[in-house]
Amino acid sequence: MDLLQIANRTFRSRLMVGTGKFSSHQAMLDAMEHSGCEIVTVALRRVDINNPQDSLLSHIDRERYLLLPNTSGARTAEEAIRLARIARAAGCEPWIKLEVTPDPYYLLPDPIETLKATEILAKEGFIVLPYMPADPVLAKRLEEAGAATVMPLGAPIGTNRGLLTRDLIAIIIEQARIPVVVDAGLGAPSHAAEAMEMGAAAVLVNTALADTPDPAAMARAFSKGVEAGREAYLAGLGPKRLQASASSPLTGFLRNES
Amino acid sequence: MDLLQIANRTFRSRLMVGTGKFSSHQAMLDAMEHSGCEIVTVALRRVDINNPQDSLLSHIDRERYLLLPNTSGARTAEEAIRLARIARAAGCEPWIKLEVTPDPYYLLPDPIETLKATEILAKEGFIVLPYMPADPVLAKRLEEAGAATVMPLGAPIGTNRGLLTRDLIAIIIEQARIPVVVDAGLGAPSHAAEAMEMGAAAVLVNTALADTPDPAAMARAFSKGVEAGREAYLAGLGPKRLQASASSPLTGFLRNES
Amino acid sequence: MDLLQIANRTFRSRLMVGTGKFSSHQAMLDAMEHSGCEIVTVALRRVDINNPQDSLLSHIDRERYLLLPNTSGARTAEEAIRLARIARAAGCEPWIKLEVTPDPYYLLPDPIETLKATEILAKEGFIVLPYMPADPVLAKRLEEAGAATVMPLGAPIGTNRGLLTRDLIAIIIEQARIPVVVDAGLGAPSHAAEAMEMGAAAVLVNTALADTPDPAAMARAFSKGVEAGREAYLAGLGPKRLQASASSPLTGFLRNES
Amino acid sequence: MDLLQIANRTFRSRLMVGTGKFSSHQAMLDAMEHSGCEIVTVALRRVDINNPQDSLLSHIDRERYLLLPNTSGARTAEEAIRLARIARAAGCEPWIKLEVTPDPYYLLPDPIETLKATEILAKEGFIVLPYMPADPVLAKRLEEAGAATVMPLGAPIGTNRGLLTRDLIAIIIEQARIPVVVDAGLGAPSHAAEAMEMGAAAVLVNTALADTPDPAAMARAFSKGVEAGREAYLAGLGPKRLQASASSPLTGFLRNES
Repeated sequence: MDLLQIANRTFRSRLMVGTGKFSSHQAMLDAMEHSGCEIVTVALRRVDINNPQDSLLSHIDRERYLLLPNTSGARTAEEAIRLARIARAAGCEPWIKLEVTPDPYYLLPDPIETLKATEILAKEGFIVLPYMPADPVLAKRLEEAGAATVMPLGAPIGTNRGLLTRDLIAIIIEQARIPVVVDAGLGAPSHAAEAMEMGAAAVLVNTALADTPDPAAMARAFSKGVEAGREAYLAGLGPKRLQASASSPLTGFLRNES
Repeated sequence: MDLLQIANRTFRSRLMVGTGKFSSHQAMLDAMEHSGCEIVTVALRRVDINNPQDSLLSHIDRERYLLLPNTSGARTAEEAIRLARIARAAGCEPWIKLEVTPDPYYLLPDPIETLKATEILAKEGFIVLPYMPADPVLAKRLEEAGAATVMPLGAPIGTNRGLLTRDLIAIIIEQARIPVVVDAGLGAPSHAAEAMEMGAAAVLVNTALADTPDPAAMARAFSKGVEAGREAYLAGLGPKRLQASASSPLTGFLRNES
Repeated sequence: MDLLQIANRTFRSRLMVGTGKFSSHQAMLDAMEHSGCEIVTVALRRVDINNPQDSLLSHIDRERYLLLPNTSGARTAEEAIRLARIARAAGCEPWIKLEVTPDPYYLLPDPIETLKATEILAKEGFIVLPYMPADPVLAKRLEEAGAATVMPLGAPIGTNRGLLTRDLIAIIIEQARIPVVVDAGLGAPSHAAEAMEMGAAAVLVNTALADTPDPAAMARAFSKGVEAGREAYLAGLGPKRLQASASSPLTGFLRNES
Repeated sequence: MDLLQIANRTFRSRLMVGTGKFSSHQAMLDAMEHSGCEIVTVALRRVDINNPQDSLLSHIDRERYLLLPNTSGARTAEEAIRLARIARAAGCEPWIKLEVTPDPYYLLPDPIETLKATEILAKEGFIVLPYMPADPVLAKRLEEAGAATVMPLGAPIGTNRGLLTRDLIAIIIEQARIPVVVDAGLGAPSHAAEAMEMGAAAVLVNTALADTPDPAAMARAFSKGVEAGREAYLAGLGPKRLQASASSPLTGFLRNES
């Protein structure tokens, strides 16, 4: 069976889901349910992690989903590390989606602070999944620093623009020994499928599911898109060609005879 | 239920499959089976349409699949019309995938001959599905001439390059009152998904299924890609944005307070 | 010297300019002047071709510029042919930029009517420059019908979106024996340069020059862009590569020694 | 006059030229001459900087060109810093193009080491021009660390693939207060023009000039491409539009009357 392995755990689903910006908790739960996801990420700044009655957390079935807290909103390594430690102290498993985004407009990750926080958190025993620019050299350094995956961005978060960084993500995938999870900017199932066809191990989607009148249907669509891309990758895609090649190979012969 | 209607028939599947270039009849049948397709296209020049024992035709279960003969190899309207009439005379249903491709290198369709043949065949009672350049004005003229669908190319046949013509196909879809079926050039499930997300009614795939070590797996992948794209289209995709938009909308507030 | 030849005339400039949508006649004249163009196109429907005092025509120095009347606004071959004949009867040289655009929203050319009008006008002795979809088969048919050039569109007119049709234009250029002039959609000098680098013989620009606060400066910029692309084409561009290649070739050696 | 200012110097040309991979010193000198460049970069590892008779250095007229030594081949901040200090000790002006590229295949820059070296060299009084990934957050950090420009890559070096990173470079330009110089991957004048149209302050080209049978002609072409893009940027480019807009605005009226 084709399983995704991250650190010491395995997953059947290669689609991770974020929990922000849904119109209601029910819309969010519908998206989670229909996506088939096994990992959901929650912004630590949005929840009261110490309170089991927290209105968001209490809705998420932690038998079913691995709750992956994220450090969204952190602007420095220090802020991110503090958030991660709070989550673990509150009893969360030591998994952390690391986000360090000093810029308030494009919410792009800081390579320096991200590496610094990865080094420290990995040493403290965290399973670190860093959100990062699509930078192949940084990806290798994060891997060396102990990251469990790298999560390069396809496009700035929330833009729905797809794999603007595809050429660099292709290099990251080629060089990585840890799973590459494409995060941010994937606005349609075709974007998710393309990432998987390139050999990404998984994708994370949020805005595209919250940004539609029918989150459950969109979640099913993304689930199929991810499976489609993964299966095509495993089957082996044909090469892109510059010249046409007839699907009906006898026509050349028939043309000559006619 | 979301059905595809072409002329007077309805179909559950929105993936059509071509039968050329497979390494064996079994590989072809596997691809057909796993694609879930209901329409398969066969080049009239490659089969002996009058012979029920024809090695290709005898393999295709015509209870299960609508056999859509195509005029691949025809260089003029006249040649295409002759092929279509032979097929009907042999007892085929009067459906014809019209292909008129005078150029032997890129196998691109001829707009003039395609329109001419469409007019004549439609008047003779054929259900005509013309392969065409991604030309919005031609699409309207084919529609007026009685075409049952239009089948614009995404990229030259066999190139696996995807929707090179996406901007023009978007206009064709916007203006068409008949189904738009994207044909040729779709080399990966993400390409098929993208076409469906744009509002295409269906896609036709051949080379991508024949061009892989595992046609059955690739056919399943395309099937999921088509469904993913269709469901996302029906659910309603969010807009592409130039600026980032946080998935965790409270961060702005928290940033201000800190 | 590198001259552009169309029919029996030669030109030093490979930039043609349209005269629509300028904020004033002076802005138009400035753009013409600074573009270095030798061919300017004027919509026959916008001028009184029989009146030498026509406010637009009287501004254009016909010693300096070849006035290329166009049939903008024509929806059929018949309308276009009528406009062309009127122009010649009024004493214009028998050059005509043929535009047949039945659709009022995207103003895309009609392949059927365009071919029909080209055949008739060429037989009547016109030098016909047809605006056309980026359709390689149609391009060959227009060439056979006597067109002096083909003018495929890069993107719908007025959109400033550049060479959306680049892959098809590349095929047109490869197959053509007459000059290929890219017309419509070129919104920036880089677009014009790209067309020339691909081997286009010339480009026609209008909206981009009218659509700026400084038409004279933009015209100079396009002129340089066209020359840049042409000179690069003649010099011979290097291939695109997937893998990096150091500009400093000794580094590999030095790396090994260190 | 539109001058490029870097640190305390101004330049008329916005095209910088690299000196690697030319087939001969004469080819390199021809390219420099015809490019109109005022800044040329030389790999410190390729020259004997202490030797005025060095075969490469002795060919470059240092009255005319600012010699910008680069640290090509350095894999760490430490190696790069050492090279920079050697150059200054040899009497070079304290300008340094900083390149730290640990990966031998794609030669992509290391964001961490690049920032570290920039901080140290800027404090030592160097004018530092760092080659960098197209990472907007890193660009701001390099600016804060004292970089005189940032030099994001368009595509991996030597690939001739153009602005693969255009969306990220647009953000870098929008946010930068120092000149943004696009470096690496620009394979054609249209690529250089596009970078300038987006608001880049300058571009650096090497492979494209060495990779052609006629470096002098290609250098002229790039020079025009850079000027074209710059002038278009200053004049103000029109917006990209989704819908067509007639160049001949009266046609709508005439269409209605007819």
